[in-house]
Amino acid sequence: MSRTLHLNAFLMGVGHHEAAWRHPRTDPTRVADVRHFQELARTAERGTLDSVFLADGLAVGPAVRHNIQAVFEPLTLLAALATVTEHVGLIATASTTYNEPFNLARAFASLDHLSGGRAGWNIVTSAQAREAWNFNLDDHPAHADRYRRAAEFVDVAVKLWDSWEDEALVLDAAAGVFADTDRVHPIDHTGDHFRVRGPLNTPRPPQGRPLLVQAGSSADGVAFAGRYAEAVFTAQQTLADAQGFYAALKRATAAAGRDPDGVKVLPGIAPVIGGTEAEARALADELSALIVPEHALAQLSGMTGLDLTGLPLDGPLPDLPDVSAVQSHQSRYQLVVDLARRERLTIRQLITRLGGGRGHRVVAGTPEQIADQIELWFTEGAADGFNVMPPLLPSGLDAFVDHVVPLLRARGLFRHEYTGRTLREHYGLPRPASGYATRELVTA
Amino acid sequence: MSRTLHLNAFLMGVGHHEAAWRHPRTDPTRVADVRHFQELARTAERGTLDSVFLADGLAVGPAVRHNIQAVFEPLTLLAALATVTEHVGLIATASTTYNEPFNLARAFASLDHLSGGRAGWNIVTSAQAREAWNFNLDDHPAHADRYRRAAEFVDVAVKLWDSWEDEALVLDAAAGVFADTDRVHPIDHTGDHFRVRGPLNTPRPPQGRPLLVQAGSSADGVAFAGRYAEAVFTAQQTLADAQGFYAALKRATAAAGRDPDGVKVLPGIAPVIGGTEAEARALADELSALIVPEHALAQLSGMTGLDLTGLPLDGPLPDLPDVSAVQSHQSRYQLVVDLARRERLTIRQLITRLGGGRGHRVVAGTPEQIADQIELWFTEGAADGFNVMPPLLPSGLDAFVDHVVPLLRARGLFRHEYTGRTLREHYGLPRPASGYATRELVTA
Ligand SMILES: Cc1cc2nc3c(=O)[nH]c(=O)nc-3n(C[C@H](O)[C@H](O)[C@H](O)COP(=O)(O)O)c2cc1C
Ligand SMILES: Cc1cc2nc3c(=O)[nH]c(=O)nc-3n(C[C@H](O)[C@H](O)[C@H](O)COP(=O)(O)O)c2cc1C
Repeated sequence: MSRTLHLNAFLMGVGHHEAAWRHPRTDPTRVADVRHFQELARTAERGTLDSVFLADGLAVGPAVRHNIQAVFEPLTLLAALATVTEHVGLIATASTTYNEPFNLARAFASLDHLSGGRAGWNIVTSAQAREAWNFNLDDHPAHADRYRRAAEFVDVAVKLWDSWEDEALVLDAAAGVFADTDRVHPIDHTGDHFRVRGPLNTPRPPQGRPLLVQAGSSADGVAFAGRYAEAVFTAQQTLADAQGFYAALKRATAAAGRDPDGVKVLPGIAPVIGGTEAEARALADELSALIVPEHALAQLSGMTGLDLTGLPLDGPLPDLPDVSAVQSHQSRYQLVVDLARRERLTIRQLITRLGGGRGHRVVAGTPEQIADQIELWFTEGAADGFNVMPPLLPSGLDAFVDHVVPLLRARGLFRHEYTGRTLREHYGLPRPASGYATRELVTA
Repeated sequence: MSRTLHLNAFLMGVGHHEAAWRHPRTDPTRVADVRHFQELARTAERGTLDSVFLADGLAVGPAVRHNIQAVFEPLTLLAALATVTEHVGLIATASTTYNEPFNLARAFASLDHLSGGRAGWNIVTSAQAREAWNFNLDDHPAHADRYRRAAEFVDVAVKLWDSWEDEALVLDAAAGVFADTDRVHPIDHTGDHFRVRGPLNTPRPPQGRPLLVQAGSSADGVAFAGRYAEAVFTAQQTLADAQGFYAALKRATAAAGRDPDGVKVLPGIAPVIGGTEAEARALADELSALIVPEHALAQLSGMTGLDLTGLPLDGPLPDLPDVSAVQSHQSRYQLVVDLARRERLTIRQLITRLGGGRGHRVVAGTPEQIADQIELWFTEGAADGFNVMPPLLPSGLDAFVDHVVPLLRARGLFRHEYTGRTLREHYGLPRPASGYATRELVTA
């Protein structure tokens, strides 16, 4: 294998389709059952997937009437998944806007220690005003400000992870020396957002630093990814758009002075799998029929910032404002506008298209057809791998692992077994040295 | 059994004695091994203990040269223990001074969901200046200010846990109704320290609210415990002092309008167990001999706020300032001063006395002698149970569970098997109703 595909299983409730929990093939009570997620993680491991991933948001709104709400906080849930798996990576979303770097660096270090080097952090800046309201604010900080804070936040976190050099833990019982304090460094960080003395209160984690993952797609988001991210999630509808994003991200990485191979781009794919194409389409139709239109319309209104709730479902979308006016989720907004215009969709058609993956690409077909799409994007410069978003869980992940993964293996695109132990090893990424050991971070 | 003893296993590294990690009966590399803690939790469960507990601090100082440093963050570690146990309660320390109530309420709710109702929160206000330096501050806020913030913090957390009524999760797939939004309440909290809109982003946890534990012993600390705590950890050296604290805490609880039985007082006990008294004393002496005096002196200097590092080990302590001048850990300071004066200890003797349990009571003896002490304090109005702090781990917890617990059972003081599933049930405490369901928290 010259170049290996990377596959991440995005775990969400009982499936990514917004009506998944209403479908007879799911059991919605399992959203509160840790064993459900443990089984999913084991399935991902059976498929030698690189990682599992949990999204997160810090607020709940009226949409919870119709929409499944996550029960578990990602870091605690992943700690519980770590104990029943051995290889699969564990990526948790956490916000730089509503946490303190010391606490978060420390929790991720703990997960990395617990799991033997399998922790990853999906760095988000929290785009909803509703989240701000839970953290003493009237509105969320502006987009650019959130990214500025995020950059300083990650700088601090990296210094904290590096603050114990790898050799600092001495454990010399005879001499009574637990740690070599010459190798445990205060970080003395002073910046616009944070003052943090350090060192971190835990030895350096097995991976040195957890894997840094990111999913911002705006100009600020791509610049941030170029500087920090080692894996990037993205929603892309067409091959051409995905190629454009892929190239832009690799350019941004090079522009930041990093090796473009050091960042893996993983577009989302929601595979609706059937034994025949007709079976797959039938499942997709069943799911579409379970969408609650008022709910979907409210979601779309939130996403576009326009009140669409009065409009006829079978009419066209009204004119939408320019993306620059959108403070929250600019790239997803652009994607929705482009999709609606390109395919001249009615409101009902748009709702149906978004229901399967909230803007991520939905591919309904046989395992071969899905493997073909994966191979096409992978070989045509659109992806280093995929963020797999099964419409139904667990059945959709089982189908992917049992029927699509073997095809990818047979084509020489994907590993037959794990060759490494850590998440960084799965993604083919190096273990960074401590900036204090290399003297890069030593100032005086 | 009319009145049942409650037992908590305080898990700390490879033992509570400050030199535990140097003793041949421990393996210090296990401080970074999650299986070590999983085995300890299983041992606690074998002994039908009420709970295990993890302390926490948000900084590391130069003492890490000689002193073991925890590797894991408590909430993530307890999530990993939840998956290998069924009954034992899981109590994590977390600071109200350096967290946001939304994040912390949510993480504890997640642990409670993960564990089927076994989460407890040891509420601390973080007394070290070194902790403040990691959170944008030059010094820690004053003692009274920290407790004021703690009170508002817990008020907010309670509202958040209550924000989903128990019946709010509907999961009506046919009707497409996930949650009954009439039973999911914004909390609209506005106070001196926090503005939090709510509701929490997770359904009500199995226990309604995690068990609230506290360990402050100052006047402010006792008043806080009287108002909020359901279990209280405390360091007490003598029966008389413990009786005084017990009575004061029950009075404070009654004064806050609560049932004094609704709070369980658990003094610490560090049991040094031997087949004979001589064996126990020999083990205690072995551990004393492993103390690094310079390190112990530095710790004592930190605790007293006086620089003792120059003084002769076999001389007396100098005069110590009055407790009111101490901003950080007033009660422990008082305990140390009283102990040194009462027994006219030299500095070396004091260091040896503190090495076994950092001020907690050390009892060296046979299982019978230890059971006698437990029974005495329990029946004489000094304790509702104990915070068990084995000097060596795992061996000290094994000895306690295998040799002391059976005696306590035979004497009718302790359960033979678990009768409940949740941590609240183990402690004989009711499951609180949501203040929104009872309309207590509904304002308009
Ligand atoms: C696959 C994927 C997963 C995401 N998960 C989260 C998440 O869990 N929480 C969150 O706040 N944002 C999440 N986002 C949103 C991004 O972090 C980011 O805020 C969004 O793409 C807008 O980026 P922009 O502001 O740079 O346009 C996700 C995005 C993608 C593509
Ligand atoms: C058994 C026990 C465990 C404690 N654990 C912690 C801890 O993990 N973290 C912490 O900051 N303080 C801890 N404390 C300290 C108390 O929370 C509290 O700060 C201290 O007793 C001082 O209280 P006061 O300020 O009311 O005197 C502990 C105290 C006891 C007795």
